Amino acid sequence: MSRPLAIAAAQMGPVVRAETRAQVVERLLLMLRDAADRGAELVVFPELALTSFFPRWELSGDALLTFFERDMPSADTKPLFDEAKRLGVGFHLGYAELTPDGHRYNTAILVERDGRVVAKYRKVHLPGHEEPEAWRPFQHLERKYFEPGPESFRVQRAFGGLVGIAICNDRRWPEAYRVLGLQGVEVVCIGYNTPIHYAPDPGQDRLAAFHNNLVMAAGAYQNATWVVGVAKGGVEEGVEGLSDSQIIGPSGEVVARSATTSDEVVVAVCDLDLCLDYKRTVFDFDRYRRPEMYTRITSQRGAVAPGDADR
Amino acid sequence: MSRPLAIAAAQMGPVVRAETRAQVVERLLLMLRDAADRGAELVVFPELALTSFFPRWELSGDALLTFFERDMPSADTKPLFDEAKRLGVGFHLGYAELTPDGHRYNTAILVERDGRVVAKYRKVHLPGHEEPEAWRPFQHLERKYFEPGPESFRVQRAFGGLVGIAICNDRRWPEAYRVLGLQGVEVVCIGYNTPIHYAPDPGQDRLAAFHNNLVMAAGAYQNATWVVGVAKGGVEEGVEGLSDSQIIGPSGEVVARSATTSDEVVVAVCDLDLCLDYKRTVFDFDRYRRPEMYTRITSQRGAVAPGDADR
Repeated sequence: MSRPLAIAAAQMGPVVRAETRAQVVERLLLMLRDAADRGAELVVFPELALTSFFPRWELSGDALLTFFERDMPSADTKPLFDEAKRLGVGFHLGYAELTPDGHRYNTAILVERDGRVVAKYRKVHLPGHEEPEAWRPFQHLERKYFEPGPESFRVQRAFGGLVGIAICNDRRWPEAYRVLGLQGVEVVCIGYNTPIHYAPDPGQDRLAAFHNNLVMAAGAYQNATWVVGVAKGGVEEGVEGLSDSQIIGPSGEVVARSATTSDEVVVAVCDLDLCLDYKRTVFDFDRYRRPEMYTRITSQRGAVAPGDADR
Repeated sequence: MSRPLAIAAAQMGPVVRAETRAQVVERLLLMLRDAADRGAELVVFPELALTSFFPRWELSGDALLTFFERDMPSADTKPLFDEAKRLGVGFHLGYAELTPDGHRYNTAILVERDGRVVAKYRKVHLPGHEEPEAWRPFQHLERKYFEPGPESFRVQRAFGGLVGIAICNDRRWPEAYRVLGLQGVEVVCIGYNTPIHYAPDPGQDRLAAFHNNLVMAAGAYQNATWVVGVAKGGVEEGVEGLSDSQIIGPSGEVVARSATTSDEVVVAVCDLDLCLDYKRTVFDFDRYRRPEMYTRITSQRGAVAPGDADR
């Protein structure tokens, strides 16, 4: 059997602070059409695709809120929805969400080929720090600007398969993939903005691309799912971001990968039935998992070494 | 700071069915001395190190029980304990355990430098099948010959650090590493016997080494721990087993790797304090984990897709 789904990873180069939404949407439209021309049925755009990665700056008031979307679609983003529907192509889009009652989330949506928003996910794992730290060359204030997503990872029936969403730092946590895997996920869309320089431990900088692949490949294999990892990368407002977007099969192998640090579309035909090769064998969860042995994972947040006082 | 621990991965080539315990122990002694000569303080032997990998055969009665250890140490294995104590070297050893009340487990022990058994672990994730299947070129009857371990993964203070054990198939499950990570683990010892041919889906055969590294590297990185993966490999009784033993740092990088399919010792000085680089930053569990989002991992065994009737 075969259940092919042509997926495009639509990587973005830098978005400068002065760039307007309309200008960014124009870039997305170019990639959407390119992807559609090449047969893509689902186009995955990155995290916070509509703006510069603003958590690098200390911001407040309107200077902060200008990076958020009150409506989706808005007047500025509607052309993307319209063009996608016209082309019969669906998409995944990350953006900063401001709710009517004032909550702020790092959000991604999944839009079906008929233009319906069929899933919305709000980032569960917020990296970085809560308050500005002057010693850093740039800030990573996601924990100041966003609330953690109030709901867990969810799988949606869409595009003829089972689709889930995770965002950026989520991809480092095996729990994220597993919660999706336990819903039978077949495609995980993951957008990211990953500064290569990690101020708390610069020794990790040289490994940014290795870790990016490692966690997504392991998540794919261990949950027998496709993973579509899509970066906003390149040097954005003086900060170098990881690019290296990639589409990974349920074997953990990369089947398509970006080759630039700019706007770039890579397409792969993903046979969703390949997931069954693993879901029915080595990762037959129902046969082999032993959840009664995993209780620490949900009963405990931090690490507690033997002999330590419980925290 | 630095907390170096010199660890040896003591890979084994094939053990044929006719080989006696005394003969195998002689091989282990050679490697133990080699490792000690090279400064090792902990020598990690593989899973079921004392015998041929007998789950490949249909066995019953004494023909099965002959592969099990009733005592540890026994008369045959005591020379290993004695020599290790004399050399001031500790070790990890996997073997088939028959308890006084007749239970059979796939077991590994950790022996400190003074000869004390400080940890015993019984394999949680048993792969393979429950009954012989004639269509297979060889059997994998772990689920017939062993009971699943009744206790979860545990970390032990030993060798100046925090040491955990997993066995073979456990290493494919992120939950195994995470349960250890939540106890602050700094070294995970993993012995394995992995046939390269996977009868339920031979398409996976070509990826055996890739998957072996992928899951251990991800487990190391995502839990900020050293992982010592040690094979019994080579062509054993007609079945080719994966070798490719490796010592992996908390960065996920392989720092030492076997180069043969035979008895072979590789040693690495593992600085346990390197774990802190990750435990205190990107994988500061207490700061960043969100266990309330992971409830499916412990509440659910098999996958349940949205809209499926609960099973």
